[in-house]
Amino acid sequence: MANTFLDRTALNDLLNGACFLGGGGGGPMSGARPLIDLIVKEYDGVTLVPYDSLDPELPCAVVAGIGAPDAATHGPSFSSAPKDAFLKLQAVSGTTLGAVLPGETGAMNSIIAALVAAQLGLPLVDVDSSGRALPTLSLAAYNLATEPTVLTLANQPVTDEQQATAVIETRTAPQADSVVRALLTTQAFEQEGAFSTWLMTAGQLPGASVDGTVTRAIAVGAALREARAAGDDPVEAVNAVLDGQLVRLSCGTLTAFSSHEGGGFDGYTIVLTDDDGHVVTVSAVNENLLAWRSDSDAPLAAAPDTLAWLAEDGTPLSNTDLRGLTAGTRLHLLGIPAAPILRTPLLAARFAKELAGIGFFGQAPRLD
Amino acid sequence: MANTFLDRTALNDLLNGACFLGGGGGGPMSGARPLIDLIVKEYDGVTLVPYDSLDPELPCAVVAGIGAPDAATHGPSFSSAPKDAFLKLQAVSGTTLGAVLPGETGAMNSIIAALVAAQLGLPLVDVDSSGRALPTLSLAAYNLATEPTVLTLANQPVTDEQQATAVIETRTAPQADSVVRALLTTQAFEQEGAFSTWLMTAGQLPGASVDGTVTRAIAVGAALREARAAGDDPVEAVNAVLDGQLVRLSCGTLTAFSSHEGGGFDGYTIVLTDDDGHVVTVSAVNENLLAWRSDSDAPLAAAPDTLAWLAEDGTPLSNTDLRGLTAGTRLHLLGIPAAPILRTPLLAARFAKELAGIGFFGQAPRLD
Repeated sequence: MANTFLDRTALNDLLNGACFLGGGGGGPMSGARPLIDLIVKEYDGVTLVPYDSLDPELPCAVVAGIGAPDAATHGPSFSSAPKDAFLKLQAVSGTTLGAVLPGETGAMNSIIAALVAAQLGLPLVDVDSSGRALPTLSLAAYNLATEPTVLTLANQPVTDEQQATAVIETRTAPQADSVVRALLTTQAFEQEGAFSTWLMTAGQLPGASVDGTVTRAIAVGAALREARAAGDDPVEAVNAVLDGQLVRLSCGTLTAFSSHEGGGFDGYTIVLTDDDGHVVTVSAVNENLLAWRSDSDAPLAAAPDTLAWLAEDGTPLSNTDLRGLTAGTRLHLLGIPAAPILRTPLLAARFAKELAGIGFFGQAPRLD
Repeated sequence: MANTFLDRTALNDLLNGACFLGGGGGGPMSGARPLIDLIVKEYDGVTLVPYDSLDPELPCAVVAGIGAPDAATHGPSFSSAPKDAFLKLQAVSGTTLGAVLPGETGAMNSIIAALVAAQLGLPLVDVDSSGRALPTLSLAAYNLATEPTVLTLANQPVTDEQQATAVIETRTAPQADSVVRALLTTQAFEQEGAFSTWLMTAGQLPGASVDGTVTRAIAVGAALREARAAGDDPVEAVNAVLDGQLVRLSCGTLTAFSSHEGGGFDGYTIVLTDDDGHVVTVSAVNENLLAWRSDSDAPLAAAPDTLAWLAEDGTPLSNTDLRGLTAGTRLHLLGIPAAPILRTPLLAARFAKELAGIGFFGQAPRLD
């Protein structure tokens, strides 16, 4: 594969595709749009590279936003926090970082990685942790190469006096995540920050990442854009890009939405009434984790499979974006089988723990 | 049916049978034993009457303990609080109460009703709200006759200066429950109290209670006592009393126990490892509400069916009693189909809401 320069159209496609593939999480659309404007205005765009075009010895690291997505809808634009976190990791590690790895696929986090790559003149690598968005650091495939033993966290200050960074050294991703969440609850971070970690070489990426995720998100976004212009069914358009793997879980009207921000997470309970009158309830911790239908004793779908929203007109929506919907908007709830790497024992056990945290102690159903 | 005088043997059988049928809740064994001693010492016992032997116009009311069961393991013995609540209801209603209705079937609450009947020289009526213990007032069959619009709450003071009562007037059981739980979190109550409500006539009991529940609990307790003496299988002994309705959900070793007291409730997560190596997880809010097995996407059982513990030697255990178990104790988790009245739409909807409160939004499986 060759390098690709992502211009405004490609970045907008990435935004839309990543929002859909994020499965409710990955940050709000509204938080990502100013970052695309910034990339295009200052740098025209960003260069996307396949990991196998990089020197296997090249040091790279992940950068992403973390915290409660609702906070990102009302906080300042994340123009400097991600770069600050990335450069702090470079400084404390004494390693010159040669490429930027996206943390996950999601509206804000796909664009944040692109922004830092543009700001620092580095290539953006066409991989990520999972091909979806993730509620905790523990679940990322990157942990299969290295746990996030050194992690930097930066805030997005409104004034210089408010600037704050932290450097965290722990042994495991669950420890790192718990420390980061505690920091996010402080006044210095107000439920959101940018982090950088998983410093590794390009040669470590196979077996510890999902390949081609940026390209896939751009293709999904382009399919949605083209379907909209042509008046085609957006679900079928996305399904074609995803090789027919999309599962229609439900289609109906949003009838209830509740959220609870705290501890560096947003918990959501989202209720649809489907066209047959069943009540479909989605439980989310940032990302959608479980979908239930009122006539079945087992979930319709569960993480690590992705549970994604698409408005009937083809607009992708993260959970925090649902808040702004007009009453009566019809939504598709669509399922995407998890990347196989998320079923490896370490990650599968951690996903099971996330589900247990919201009261599910059984064997999660699989879409594939 | 004739009246029955419950002596120490019958009260001990009631304690054991009610503890089992309480399905994890209903208060701890340790909190009930001093109350049996008090009944026998002061009054020899108590008179149990079938509801249909009472004048249909006779006013009666429910009395029971409420709150976090763990609190009842370390608080003062509930010798006066239930009587105080019952007499306060009589005073504020201006009605002379002629009989005592048990709130639910459970170690403490079956005995508390017997104590008040003995203390006031009134008959104990052989009915209750459900034939099991219930996490909230909302779920009681008594609500089908009258919601608990006037409710009195009393504490168990250590000194006279600590005495506290409250009279609550609301329109519905969920409202009454929410106000009671708020009161229970105060210093005056320290997570537990006794309440009296559901003032009704004996003639209102059919269609708004479960009949014969005290007799059934005594029969279960006697079966456990006799099985133990004879070395018979306690599960089979109980199953015979319950007309073969008992369902063996799991049998294994307790491998994890966690609890969280707060808001006038105890939340529990209790984990067994069964004989085939499956992990069985029971989620409880005071009472057991859901049981999961690690190899199934649907629950093994769910409320309103009862999920009850029995040690392999035939000792019944409430959830708070599990805390004291020797490591490696083998436990049966047994299911009992719910009394049909708990499936009436008002109560079924309220049970579904309890399950939603711990993350289950599907259709609960049924044991019958």
